[in-house]
This record gives sequence, C-alpha cells and structure tokens, in this order.
Amino acid sequence: MTLSIEIICVGTELLIGKTLNTNANWLAKRITSLGTKVARISIIGDNVHEIASSVKEAMQRKNDFIITMGGLGPTFDDKTLKGVAEGLNRKLAVNDEALKMIEYKYRSYVKEGRMERFELTSPRIKMARLPEGAKPLHNPVGTAPGVMMECEGKIIISLPGVPSEMKAIFEEAVLPILKRTAGHLTFFEASIDTTGVVESELAPVIDRVMHDNPYVYIKSHPKGAERVPRIEFHLSTTAKDSKTAKKRVNKALSQLSEMIQNKGAKIKPKEVVS
Amino acid sequence: MTLSIEIICVGTELLIGKTLNTNANWLAKRITSLGTKVARISIIGDNVHEIASSVKEAMQRKNDFIITMGGLGPTFDDKTLKGVAEGLNRKLAVNDEALKMIEYKYRSYVKEGRMERFELTSPRIKMARLPEGAKPLHNPVGTAPGVMMECEGKIIISLPGVPSEMKAIFEEAVLPILKRTAGHLTFFEASIDTTGVVESELAPVIDRVMHDNPYVYIKSHPKGAERVPRIEFHLSTTAKDSKTAKKRVNKALSQLSEMIQNKGAKIKPKEVVS
Repeated sequence: MTLSIEIICVGTELLIGKTLNTNANWLAKRITSLGTKVARISIIGDNVHEIASSVKEAMQRKNDFIITMGGLGPTFDDKTLKGVAEGLNRKLAVNDEALKMIEYKYRSYVKEGRMERFELTSPRIKMARLPEGAKPLHNPVGTAPGVMMECEGKIIISLPGVPSEMKAIFEEAVLPILKRTAGHLTFFEASIDTTGVVESELAPVIDRVMHDNPYVYIKSHPKGAERVPRIEFHLSTTAKDSKTAKKRVNKALSQLSEMIQNKGAKIKPKEVVS
Repeated sequence: MTLSIEIICVGTELLIGKTLNTNANWLAKRITSLGTKVARISIIGDNVHEIASSVKEAMQRKNDFIITMGGLGPTFDDKTLKGVAEGLNRKLAVNDEALKMIEYKYRSYVKEGRMERFELTSPRIKMARLPEGAKPLHNPVGTAPGVMMECEGKIIISLPGVPSEMKAIFEEAVLPILKRTAGHLTFFEASIDTTGVVESELAPVIDRVMHDNPYVYIKSHPKGAERVPRIEFHLSTTAKDSKTAKKRVNKALSQLSEMIQNKGAKIKPKEVVS
C-alpha cells in the first residue's frame, strides 16, 4: 500500500510571493521518489490559528504522515509548534532533550568563534518548547531541532524552513522512517516532447493509452505561447521493483509514441529519469 | 478593508515535484502588490473529489475570492470545472459563449495554418462545459477560457495552468475586478541583510520594532549553512497611499538598523522594491 503524506508550509513570505516554494518542490520530489505519495500541500501564513486549523483539517483527512515546514526558529514569527500543539490539543512544554541539543549547538558556535558567549535566553528556550509527547530530531546544520510525534495513528513531523536545515533533518531522521514504513516501492517517470499537433487532437490518444496501461499515469503539458503547438507528455508509475516500473512506463511510452505519430505529430525524447 | 483571496492549484505534477509552482508565486506577488491578501494556497492533484472538497473547505473560510489554477484543458486529466461544480453544488452545462470563444480560436488556428481543419470534437466541447451560472473569461493566448462565478457572496475564478494563459487572463479579466473591489491600497516592502550576529540574539530587537511600528510586518530569514551568521530582514506594509506605506516602512527600517548595529551586526541594504 502506498503511504500518503500531506505537507503544510508555514510562512507569510510564501503568501506574499517573496519566496518561491522550492522547499515544497524538493520535498515532494524526494517523497515521490521513495514510492510514497504527496496527497496535498497547504501553504499558510505565520499565524497560530491558521496553523492549528490546517493541522486539524489534515488530521481529518486520510493520510499517514503530516509534515510541516517552517516556523521553528527563535523569533516571534516562528509559531509552528504552538499551532501544531493547538491543532492536536496538546500543551507546549520545554523538552529536555531538545534543550540539550540547542545548548550543545550554541556552545559549539562559541568554540568556533561564531559567537562571543552563550546565554540560555528566552528566544533560545522557545525552540525547545515542543508539544507534549514529541521527540526532537537532531539538526545537523542549524540550531532549531526538528520535531516528531504520533497522534491518532498518524505521524506528525515539523521541519525548519531554512532549506539546508530542512533537507538535512529529512535525510537523516525522516527518510529512514519513511523507507521502513513504505516498504520497497519505486517511482519511475519518463517524458517526451511532441510538436505539430494541438492537445485537443491528442486527447483521445491519451485516453486509449491510459486505458490499456492502467498502472501508468499520463499527463499532457501544453507549452503555450508558441506558433507551433508543442506538448510534453509525462508518464509515471509506482511499482514494487524498478524493473517492473520501467517495463510498464516503456510499454505505455511505445504505444503513446506510435499513436501520436499516426496523428501526424513529431516526437523527440526529452529525458528519462530513474 | 483588505480583500482576502485563496488560491487552489490543481495538478498532480505539483505533488510529485515535477513542476516548481512558479504560477502560485507569480499570482501571490501580483495579488499582494494590489494591496489584496493571499490567505492560503492549497495544492491538490487531478482528482474531482479532491478539487470539490478543497473548494468546499475554502467556501467555509473567511475570504472574498477563490482562484483555482490548472485543469481547464481538453484532456481527461483536466477536471477542475467538474470539481468546482461539485464543490458548489452546481451542474456542468455547455456554455454557448464559451463554445463560441473556443470555436473562434480554433478557426483562427486553421487560418494561420497551425491546424489543417477544425472539428467540434468532444475534447473541445469539454472546455465549454462550465458550472451553471458561470461566465467564460476570454483567453488571449490559448483555447480554454477562464471561468468566473459568484456563490454565497464570494467570487470564484478558474484560470488555466499554462503560465502564459493564466497570466494573460488574470491581467485582462481578473485584475480590473480586484482593483475595483479592493479600492486604492498599496503594498510596500524593503529588505536588509545583516551579518555577524545570530538570529536568536536579534529576536528581542524585532519584537521591539514590531511593537513600535504596529502596521509594519517584519520577518527574519536566516540564510543557513554559512560560517558567518547572515540574516535577511524583510519589512512590509499595506496602506491607503504609497507615501504613507513608504514612510511607515522607512521609519521601522531606521529603528531596526540602529538597534541591530547596537547589537554588533553589520548591515548592507539589499533591495528596495516599490
């Protein structure tokens, strides 16, 4: 069975268009490559009520993991853990293990000369205030630990918004859990570019190839604003092993290519990613 | 009063990480620049049930506009209008005005030699099947019209996912409506980069400046993975005229710069965008 994951991105910078959401893109790609599935991505601002209600909504939906990104730092606008706690009806409390991680990290900064001296100020203690029952996840890059907890059969994980920290905690702490839970599934995808025939002409072809290849998802992406109609076809599948996955995609790809050429379109292979 | 807008992006390519969501970023920036506010962005796959339920959820929340992007084309995976109709409890029916727009566009393709001949096939008629009571919006770039409807005091707009088409319909048909409804508000933002002091040290400074400048939103963005701590501060406000907006941001910026330098950090002005 394919594991289903929801992503909640927290950050007003995403809602005002200041920051392009490369984090969600990276995580979605990474999760998909493991044979697990991203069911939904929600983006909300730095607002406790918004965070709490989006967590509550995600808890009501069918999914196995909820991953939040952003809002774990020391400043007032880092509100994710308060929102997650509220959404799960838990209290926030200083977590000793998290506090030790934070203290250790700042002391290493002092040793390296990045800071003059270390004091356990309230913005620093704030990063150790986790929802009750949560476990901190080691942050190999920055100061704020990631956070993991279980609730009503789901696993809820909070990662920082700084890309290097988010990626490092994901690879070190989250990936092994997903791999263990997901079992051995592989995602495989391939694309072709076609020119010379408009999308509406090729619609029945896609229907037919999808029908004949029930495990392969095919999507057409028209590349607009060109005098010559150009369409990218993207084929993907998830299977128990990469041999099966490749075989399925390649079979669908052959049929699709043949039928598209019969309609008069030209094809050039675009990329094959394993 | 600031208008509040929700964006719903439809497309499995966004959930598998194939496509970076530059559409949402562009639209969020554009909406913010008008003095209107993006309250939430949701990203879902090409699935009628998912589209319907995310529309229903957005209808329950406090907002004035709901804008969907993607899924208006001629192929089987273009399911947005079916989902929107289901979410609003409306039926889908062929809209004569939309059908005329589509026919006119294909006939112009034939004239330009981009297609040999035009037939009103079922994938083409599909693009004219709108929720009852909806109005098609002229697409100056591609074939699928945008769609606008009113429901329970909200305006729901559906735009295509092809970036050039989405942007063209927004500028031509949506922008005038937003401007009329939003009145005359201006968004203004500025950023500074600081080096040499870690974020947790500067947290109380932000608190103080936010307190003294209640209309200015300040957010710190640590730039990770560097030996020397570097933090970007982003200040923004929405006001009735650009003079007031600039004055507010500049006042907060002066106070912030002074207090940050007193903490020992170095500052370089980064960018000022009006």
